[in-house]
Amino acid sequence: MSETRIRLGLLGCGTVGRGVARLIKENQQDIQRRVGAPIEIHRILVRDKAADRGPNIDTSRLTTRAEAVLDDPYVDIVVELMGGLTPTHDYVATALNQNLHVVTANKALIATHGTALFTTAQERGVALRFEAAVAGGIPIIRSLREGLASDRVQRIVAILNGTSNFILSQMSSNGAPYQSALAEAQAAGYAEADPSLDVGGFDAAQKLTILSGLAFGTPLDGGKNVHTEGITCLAPQDFTHARAMGYAIKPLAIAQKEDDCVHARVHPTLIPRTSLLASVDDVFNAVHITSDGLGPSLLYGAGAGMMPTAVAVVSDVIESARALVHEGSDSAGAQASPIEQMPFAAAGDFDCQHYLRFTVVDQSGVLATLSTVLGDQNISIASMFQTKQASDDTPVEIVVCTHRARLPDVNQAVSIIDQLPIVRQPTVAVRMDSDL
Amino acid sequence: MSETRIRLGLLGCGTVGRGVARLIKENQQDIQRRVGAPIEIHRILVRDKAADRGPNIDTSRLTTRAEAVLDDPYVDIVVELMGGLTPTHDYVATALNQNLHVVTANKALIATHGTALFTTAQERGVALRFEAAVAGGIPIIRSLREGLASDRVQRIVAILNGTSNFILSQMSSNGAPYQSALAEAQAAGYAEADPSLDVGGFDAAQKLTILSGLAFGTPLDGGKNVHTEGITCLAPQDFTHARAMGYAIKPLAIAQKEDDCVHARVHPTLIPRTSLLASVDDVFNAVHITSDGLGPSLLYGAGAGMMPTAVAVVSDVIESARALVHEGSDSAGAQASPIEQMPFAAAGDFDCQHYLRFTVVDQSGVLATLSTVLGDQNISIASMFQTKQASDDTPVEIVVCTHRARLPDVNQAVSIIDQLPIVRQPTVAVRMDSDL
Repeated sequence: MSETRIRLGLLGCGTVGRGVARLIKENQQDIQRRVGAPIEIHRILVRDKAADRGPNIDTSRLTTRAEAVLDDPYVDIVVELMGGLTPTHDYVATALNQNLHVVTANKALIATHGTALFTTAQERGVALRFEAAVAGGIPIIRSLREGLASDRVQRIVAILNGTSNFILSQMSSNGAPYQSALAEAQAAGYAEADPSLDVGGFDAAQKLTILSGLAFGTPLDGGKNVHTEGITCLAPQDFTHARAMGYAIKPLAIAQKEDDCVHARVHPTLIPRTSLLASVDDVFNAVHITSDGLGPSLLYGAGAGMMPTAVAVVSDVIESARALVHEGSDSAGAQASPIEQMPFAAAGDFDCQHYLRFTVVDQSGVLATLSTVLGDQNISIASMFQTKQASDDTPVEIVVCTHRARLPDVNQAVSIIDQLPIVRQPTVAVRMDSDL
Repeated sequence: MSETRIRLGLLGCGTVGRGVARLIKENQQDIQRRVGAPIEIHRILVRDKAADRGPNIDTSRLTTRAEAVLDDPYVDIVVELMGGLTPTHDYVATALNQNLHVVTANKALIATHGTALFTTAQERGVALRFEAAVAGGIPIIRSLREGLASDRVQRIVAILNGTSNFILSQMSSNGAPYQSALAEAQAAGYAEADPSLDVGGFDAAQKLTILSGLAFGTPLDGGKNVHTEGITCLAPQDFTHARAMGYAIKPLAIAQKEDDCVHARVHPTLIPRTSLLASVDDVFNAVHITSDGLGPSLLYGAGAGMMPTAVAVVSDVIESARALVHEGSDSAGAQASPIEQMPFAAAGDFDCQHYLRFTVVDQSGVLATLSTVLGDQNISIASMFQTKQASDDTPVEIVVCTHRARLPDVNQAVSIIDQLPIVRQPTVAVRMDSDL
């Protein structure tokens, strides 16, 4: 065994790749002790060989040709850190088809092409691991796969997008409007120049698709069955109103078993300030799981960033390498094998409580009008309050919290109300859960 | 492979044992799919064969002789659920020496005899797994062993004793005195008739010893290097005072790397109400880890109870069984193999902030006297406040929060102060951490 060494082929060498190289270098001895053989980075696919990659990258390993990694007979494990679907999907499929083990941090790839890739991996007797694809350094994939191996999940409620959580945390603590909180996130390096994947909820929807697939066996369909709302509709006064009622607003991703199918949705949500998820601030992620055996449990940690993501990638690399050294293969238990195989419910067809902020003229009968429209759509009011009018011609805000109501009914009511002459600005509707 | 079946020998069949039997029965198919072979309970050691054990236990499997389990040639994995050290230690050592894999939920056994048992297991090429021994259903052992495989832990701060957390939660939310909160815990089945192991901090000290051993390689010495304080000194007004300052009081277990050794301590602690751990209430447990790569992370869940503990036991059983089916052995990576091997610092020799509640006569010069004694012991005051006197002859309370100070200095100051004639009741000293 002393002659064995495990050789990695890296696809991509950005921030996370440099983190992986640093961890492997700094913890060489410890990793060797855990694996039973040394691990080394053998080939690295990059676009530009001349770019500066810091002290932990051996530049003689760089190549700009994917074949130089994928066809190298010495590579044992391919580590995919390029992101995106094209040409990444081809590369990963090729690697698996050549009986190479793959570790990836690519949420879009797993959420979209996971099923076919896992099938290929199984046929080839190799493993495709993806701990870093969801919630960075939080070992949620491992926990769902192993810790809950004999348990049945009922519900997952998670904060999966650090950018959105950072923006909402800023808006909540500073009273900042959305645009300036976004600018702050961009200045801190937490948000892209085009932030739409993050603030629109699509990043979280892909991650939720992966978690739901593991927990419930729902299809890996790229997130298209996840009802997805972004955070851009929120204004500073929504946080003030929420706080006055004892609530925080958090960007949640929810997958919930109901009547033999899974309701999956991503939206900002009012939750009680006393709930654990309400204390998850800034760029941090958390996953709250309710299962039959364990009851409620929660994992919290850094959802992104160079080193947290690198730790997750290297933990997968170690697991694959250990299996290779001790078994000569890495197929056992690495695949997504959920306890059940459930379908998604139609996206958007769910019921929950709602927070509705109406901006209306201050005249008698307004509340009656609103109540009538809501009642007509089967929406029952749990509580309401009205802001004071600043001057005679400014509108007032009426905040209504509803009992559980169907989302299509609420959307219908809001679209009727927004056409009424008493309404001064489009109504803001935010989902709410007082039981979390 | 289709002929293979994995047979368990249970030592003990109380609450957790019945939970294990239920999970194995209810999830038979799913477990078989994950393991690659069916799992069955083959022999069960009990004290009384006639006791009622519910519908999931096949009574023909019961025996009152340990040898009938340990010497049975068909048993593959021994599951130890008896607890205690005698005769459990002998049974587990015997099982390992007979090349049997062992899964245990026994914190005292691992904290006290873990080192020798792991050595035996390694020599015999078998595995000793113990996920259920710390924090019940929270997969903290697995996370430390695998998720952080390439990371270095700096600090563990945890709530590991559900009984203590329940009592402090009750005292905080209801203003209940200690004795009635304890009675409530006993009525709810959360506390033993003799609660001293739980409320004295010794249970948490053993669990912390196991976590510290995994994270830092400190010795498994039964908890004797953990500075241990119980929760019995706290009174309802301590929660009121803490809340007024923005703090909660939580029963924490802390292991922290400092100057090449590990400071380990268990004590109630004032922490900011905004910290995640402050929201961990009732019987729930949580483990907050700070590591170089991941930064801060937290795992939360049920720390005890029939099904959470059973889920943890069965997850270990599945892992062992899967290794047996796929590798024919279960030695790879199952042992505690920390990255470092560090010694413990002397118990009680640490510094932190302190909350001190003095009960004194209301006369001028008292504060000056207290300040002088504290100053003489190198203790610097960060803040103080004094309660109003109810009537002329009642004492007042002076609450002092200190900057970081050495525990021996604080103990010395308190023992000097408690001998002064101005003092009406023994001073209450609680550790405090405003950075958590």
